[in-house]
Amino acid sequence: MSNPNVIVAGIRGRMGRQIARLVLDSEKLALSGGTVPASDSLAGDTIAMTDTRDTAHDIPVTDDLAKFDGVPDVVIDFTAPDHTMSLLETCLREKSALVIGTTGFSDEQEEKIRQAAEKIAIVKAGNMSLGINLLTLLVEQAAAALGPDYDIEIHEAHHRHKKDAPSGTALMLGEAAATGRKVSLKDQAVYAREGQTGVRPEGAIGFSVTRAGGIIGEHEVLFGAEEEIISLSHKALDRSVFARGAVTAAGWVAGREPGLYSMRDVLGL
Amino acid sequence: MSNPNVIVAGIRGRMGRQIARLVLDSEKLALSGGTVPASDSLAGDTIAMTDTRDTAHDIPVTDDLAKFDGVPDVVIDFTAPDHTMSLLETCLREKSALVIGTTGFSDEQEEKIRQAAEKIAIVKAGNMSLGINLLTLLVEQAAAALGPDYDIEIHEAHHRHKKDAPSGTALMLGEAAATGRKVSLKDQAVYAREGQTGVRPEGAIGFSVTRAGGIIGEHEVLFGAEEEIISLSHKALDRSVFARGAVTAAGWVAGREPGLYSMRDVLGL
Amino acid sequence: MSNPNVIVAGIRGRMGRQIARLVLDSEKLALSGGTVPASDSLAGDTIAMTDTRDTAHDIPVTDDLAKFDGVPDVVIDFTAPDHTMSLLETCLREKSALVIGTTGFSDEQEEKIRQAAEKIAIVKAGNMSLGINLLTLLVEQAAAALGPDYDIEIHEAHHRHKKDAPSGTALMLGEAAATGRKVSLKDQAVYAREGQTGVRPEGAIGFSVTRAGGIIGEHEVLFGAEEEIISLSHKALDRSVFARGAVTAAGWVAGREPGLYSMRDVLGL
Amino acid sequence: MSNPNVIVAGIRGRMGRQIARLVLDSEKLALSGGTVPASDSLAGDTIAMTDTRDTAHDIPVTDDLAKFDGVPDVVIDFTAPDHTMSLLETCLREKSALVIGTTGFSDEQEEKIRQAAEKIAIVKAGNMSLGINLLTLLVEQAAAALGPDYDIEIHEAHHRHKKDAPSGTALMLGEAAATGRKVSLKDQAVYAREGQTGVRPEGAIGFSVTRAGGIIGEHEVLFGAEEEIISLSHKALDRSVFARGAVTAAGWVAGREPGLYSMRDVLGL
Repeated sequence: MSNPNVIVAGIRGRMGRQIARLVLDSEKLALSGGTVPASDSLAGDTIAMTDTRDTAHDIPVTDDLAKFDGVPDVVIDFTAPDHTMSLLETCLREKSALVIGTTGFSDEQEEKIRQAAEKIAIVKAGNMSLGINLLTLLVEQAAAALGPDYDIEIHEAHHRHKKDAPSGTALMLGEAAATGRKVSLKDQAVYAREGQTGVRPEGAIGFSVTRAGGIIGEHEVLFGAEEEIISLSHKALDRSVFARGAVTAAGWVAGREPGLYSMRDVLGL
Repeated sequence: MSNPNVIVAGIRGRMGRQIARLVLDSEKLALSGGTVPASDSLAGDTIAMTDTRDTAHDIPVTDDLAKFDGVPDVVIDFTAPDHTMSLLETCLREKSALVIGTTGFSDEQEEKIRQAAEKIAIVKAGNMSLGINLLTLLVEQAAAALGPDYDIEIHEAHHRHKKDAPSGTALMLGEAAATGRKVSLKDQAVYAREGQTGVRPEGAIGFSVTRAGGIIGEHEVLFGAEEEIISLSHKALDRSVFARGAVTAAGWVAGREPGLYSMRDVLGL
Repeated sequence: MSNPNVIVAGIRGRMGRQIARLVLDSEKLALSGGTVPASDSLAGDTIAMTDTRDTAHDIPVTDDLAKFDGVPDVVIDFTAPDHTMSLLETCLREKSALVIGTTGFSDEQEEKIRQAAEKIAIVKAGNMSLGINLLTLLVEQAAAALGPDYDIEIHEAHHRHKKDAPSGTALMLGEAAATGRKVSLKDQAVYAREGQTGVRPEGAIGFSVTRAGGIIGEHEVLFGAEEEIISLSHKALDRSVFARGAVTAAGWVAGREPGLYSMRDVLGL
Repeated sequence: MSNPNVIVAGIRGRMGRQIARLVLDSEKLALSGGTVPASDSLAGDTIAMTDTRDTAHDIPVTDDLAKFDGVPDVVIDFTAPDHTMSLLETCLREKSALVIGTTGFSDEQEEKIRQAAEKIAIVKAGNMSLGINLLTLLVEQAAAALGPDYDIEIHEAHHRHKKDAPSGTALMLGEAAATGRKVSLKDQAVYAREGQTGVRPEGAIGFSVTRAGGIIGEHEVLFGAEEEIISLSHKALDRSVFARGAVTAAGWVAGREPGLYSMRDVLGL
């Protein structure tokens, strides 16, 4: 049996490029193409990619998944909600599995993804690193073990190009802390502090945000009592940590039963 | 000649107590009393303080500086603007020197302090630690040496009781960075980030704030480029670092010519 | 029923003083005295201690536990192995409970403690903070969940007066990591690196040590893969965090059945 | 006039590849080839490299600089001392400029480089990032301003493949601190701590080392007093920060007068 073939959406973007390179170097997956915006002058043509043996490959790219000749086994998507919806339709028609790392869907779009997952296998996660997924488990536990004397604060730092704050991953960690404490994040979250804030509200879960240079992604969850601090943190050293998680998910989901899966399923946590 | 005698304003507060203990243990200063709020049941009485030799001392406290018998050589004040103004009047009358660590004065109050400094010696500083005062110098230099490719971000963390954000010291560091860059902090400051912020504005000086447990005071100034981060930071290990700066200032200012002095004067930076 | 009365060994040392102050302020324990070295000129006399209401108390101190009039319910000990052994004898005779924070016992001394615990209640722990004890649990779990691609490194920082390296707590965290990995710390530990070390041995658990100024105690356990770092850390903000743990243990162990207890027992982790 | 042409030594190594890619994308330099070990099966052939426009280029590689047809304007070298010596001979013969990032030379080899610099232009630096070079300046200043109450500690962290400890950059920072203090690093350095170390020697400059996963390079210089910590640190976010420094140096040194230059010269610090 040949390796599952993979299409990478947004293959010329920062993330798409990383994913494509990992698929190219993988011994278990085959890279058969990528999508690009309709405005890209190479749409319908090929791009050159070099593997780790310094050999060049020509990879076909189109602006529409439906235009490829063959049927992809898996599509990996880190693009934008509208493009994801278009991919979803083609995947449903072709019975391709889908790995979704895109964020920012509307409630309606989330519902469409849930319905599609009754017919095809979908892995969906806001953050695909093993480290972050383990961290959410530890944060939940620590929040449960430490009493209300321990204030919870989440600090995240990302590169200057990031457009939202706090990051989706920071919110995910906030949800884990709230779950551990048996409270609702919505009720407890303090997203920013400026001016005369008064003393810290009891039970608050605070967030703070740094944006600078090329920081790939750093998250810290801090539990602070009067006399000690416990801190659980994660630092991405290389953008490819997210790409690698996506490629791991693609290998795991190929040929699997329909369903909506998380990274905890993929990683067996 | 006997040691200069010192009155500590707010002697039963967290900071006042620290300062009083250091004055008590000092070989160059003598502790002659402290002020307390009028509501304090010990006002007009004495409080017990133990020195490092485990010997107890009775220290007279009153709700009004003017009620003390003798004339203080120096008054050390970390209280609140209104109390500072009352101390200022008595100091002017008695020709006592004054060390002011209180913050949050109105423009009118600042003006009164400036006028008083024509007649008595005053040291005034938002942060009295040697470390922080050195840090502002280094931040100014780094901001001047590093081009606009290096984004500036200031993160500070303090205990849960702190009522304003960012801290006065963080703002002082922001001013130093702005001076180094030859821009105005007012124009460049981003004090908080929440929601769809868009990409980082070029030239911005960003702030972020953590509040948790008993963190005494941490400040970090980060310069972030695409491929590297330089970070200059300060951590107080003990509240007494600020108290010690105040006591150093008291020893330095006793008997000095009238004038408005900064910690750079005191520390010879 | 009156509060259990407590004797603090080494009451004029840094740690003993902290513990004594917390016992003095406790609503559930009574401070009845302390031990001091025979060379202390105050041995047989009293020392002055101030409580949080600024009231002075005279506390009797002797160089030998056996010289006190009454029988202590609990003795708290952060001194040195030889003094602990002398305390142990008196506690056995008087049926007093014992909280041991001292470290560095010989195998023979450890055995004596185990035997004593058949007759009296003893809490013994290298580190009495809730945070550190929780951290060891999380480290064990993380080490088990993360595969061998994640290198384990432990960094600790302490004040300039500390005489051994790495700290007992760092070793405790190393043991937790080794347990999670199902290896022996002894086989995997790399305690220091200098010169031509060669590449990192697979499976190593590395240690590194900072000694500077008044750092109270910081521990970080880092799990580092090619593309991400997970870090679990603890910082003491105030020496009293260890003192408080000891006082909590004293309250818990008073009147309890004989046995050798850990902080996990006391904290219910 | 055409762009200076550049040969990259060790072009298939981690660092060489990064440098070659930056030269390929540079608008001011031209990539004309690279060297590889004699054992490389592609020696004498070409390798494929893709530029940022996803276009492939064939780059000639040989095992000996002397085998190239043309004369390189600049050679960039991050390899090993023996290979550097062979490059140096060819550069002397051809009057090519040389950028040396290799470390670990013997005294004799250092002397040969100094002599060569009388005839050709050479930039030599242990660390080519702007950030690190600025940091050494700030460290020198801080060490001079802070008295002996501030203990100096240097911590560095690198990936698991690094073979020496502490890093050359950590030693460079140690030299800067010693210069600021007007002491000799050799006399004050404590490179590792293990077991019964005793209290910290006064005036010591301590080092500690972490090795884990893919950490690119982190350096922290800490000044620790009893009550506060000042920390000056640098983190590489991307290996290309060193590569970029080397490419900047190559552009700067091409066509320059003979001499031995440092990165402070290149960066104008």
